[in-house]
Amino acid sequence: MSVTSSAAPFADWMGDVQRRVEAALAHHLPSANGIPQRLHEAMRYAALGGGKRVRPLLAFAAGELSGATAENLDVIACAVELIHAYSLVHDDLPCMDDDVLRRGRPTCHVEYDEATALLVGDSLQTLAFELLAGADLGEPARQLEMIALLAHASGSRGMAGGQAIDLAAAGKALEQPELELMHALKTGALIRAAVLLGAQAGAPLTSERRGQLDRFAKRAGLLFQVVDDILDCTASTATLGKTAGKDEAAEKPTYVALLGLDTARAYAEELHAEALAALAVFGDRAARLCQLTDFICHRRF
Amino acid sequence: MSVTSSAAPFADWMGDVQRRVEAALAHHLPSANGIPQRLHEAMRYAALGGGKRVRPLLAFAAGELSGATAENLDVIACAVELIHAYSLVHDDLPCMDDDVLRRGRPTCHVEYDEATALLVGDSLQTLAFELLAGADLGEPARQLEMIALLAHASGSRGMAGGQAIDLAAAGKALEQPELELMHALKTGALIRAAVLLGAQAGAPLTSERRGQLDRFAKRAGLLFQVVDDILDCTASTATLGKTAGKDEAAEKPTYVALLGLDTARAYAEELHAEALAALAVFGDRAARLCQLTDFICHRRF
Repeated sequence: MSVTSSAAPFADWMGDVQRRVEAALAHHLPSANGIPQRLHEAMRYAALGGGKRVRPLLAFAAGELSGATAENLDVIACAVELIHAYSLVHDDLPCMDDDVLRRGRPTCHVEYDEATALLVGDSLQTLAFELLAGADLGEPARQLEMIALLAHASGSRGMAGGQAIDLAAAGKALEQPELELMHALKTGALIRAAVLLGAQAGAPLTSERRGQLDRFAKRAGLLFQVVDDILDCTASTATLGKTAGKDEAAEKPTYVALLGLDTARAYAEELHAEALAALAVFGDRAARLCQLTDFICHRRF
Repeated sequence: MSVTSSAAPFADWMGDVQRRVEAALAHHLPSANGIPQRLHEAMRYAALGGGKRVRPLLAFAAGELSGATAENLDVIACAVELIHAYSLVHDDLPCMDDDVLRRGRPTCHVEYDEATALLVGDSLQTLAFELLAGADLGEPARQLEMIALLAHASGSRGMAGGQAIDLAAAGKALEQPELELMHALKTGALIRAAVLLGAQAGAPLTSERRGQLDRFAKRAGLLFQVVDDILDCTASTATLGKTAGKDEAAEKPTYVALLGLDTARAYAEELHAEALAALAVFGDRAARLCQLTDFICHRRF
């Protein structure tokens, strides 16, 4: 089931998915009236009301490749987005990036307090797995594989591991292979998981198609990060809704620092083309994924 | 399969389970040689080499009720202990209990640093779910239920929620019902999960037996906490391997503060008797669980 007609403009489809995911998150997050109220209110603050929802969009677009239902994709999109939201809350903490602004609002520990923000991140992660395990997505054995994939992508050999490399790298000059490993883990792993899980929510793909989709997912993850680095040094804080220029201020290794702005831009175009090429095997079914890749490449926020 | 002969002394059985779980954790935790090395080393520091392993012991003892295999119980014991280890690392952070000593060694953020400890807790939690989803425990649908149960017990309506209530309660006088709710979540939920998951790893129990086991698990969780509160104000830091007397210093609501030492001790004996009574329906199969309940009640550390 498509979310909107496949002929509808991309902007309509994107808005539709974003509204669906917002509603599904609002439904699955604990009520702010339930004990402990402050923690639940803070979880809702951190997970609702903002963000581009790039990972949910990727899951929904990838779901079109395998005919996944919107109901299954709601669950997957929520689980992936809850992991992403937890990582933002913890990354913003004083002992990590110490940031005060996120999605145009005070970060969770500024709006509440550090201890609450710590528990918010912990609980959002747990909720992702509770949701994915508790839903009926069809074949239980495949559902277990999906949970294991999301966990691997999120943990010390995925997203959290990338964050650890990032921390250790501040102030150091990384070479491009090291920088790519860091980003393949820090942002790439969860973006890849969103794509693969979206497709896994429908009919099984042939192994050749799975391979092409994985190639796409890795390119898309890298593309997202290169564009993020470019925006960090070219866009304003108001446009981004988070503190601009903080990578440079923190002497973080970025693609812009490594390659310079022009070469980073050319690299983004190259990744963009490679990502689209990997989708050719899917024909028209990949139309949304292609449009979304264009959006990721050319976004201004 | 029993871990040791059911006729073996309790101390032998306990030592055997503790060694098994230590070995299984050492196997499942990422190698300290794998990138990112510092994070993986710190995860091993936090999860290995200590602790009474009460939750794994409960899982193994409960597994005897349903004839669970030791291999399945290894996985469950590791998953529950990884959640417990993550909670200790985060609870010890400066923004939470700010503690420097755990299991007779510097806490994770003292030995490493705060950012690493944050990622250690995050990654230990993720690993618990990765492990539970990736193992072959038999029926996949039941395995999904087990993951959902562990997640619910760990999250904002379980362990993390109890910690949030605890934070909010410091310096306030709680009544016994509020104190019991806090502990039912903070320590009780994960202890209950260890018991139920241990039994679920074997043949299904009748609904009457499940009900009795749940009654036992809730009593055992409360008993563990009441004894913990008693030890916090009667045992030394050297004996406990963690800072003694810190509940009183932090004006935390405890059973001793609420009831006084003598009444708290009498309450522990009452819970002990109720827990054992709930196990009567299982006959001899509950022998280890009864012995373990005695140990939890009469431990000195």
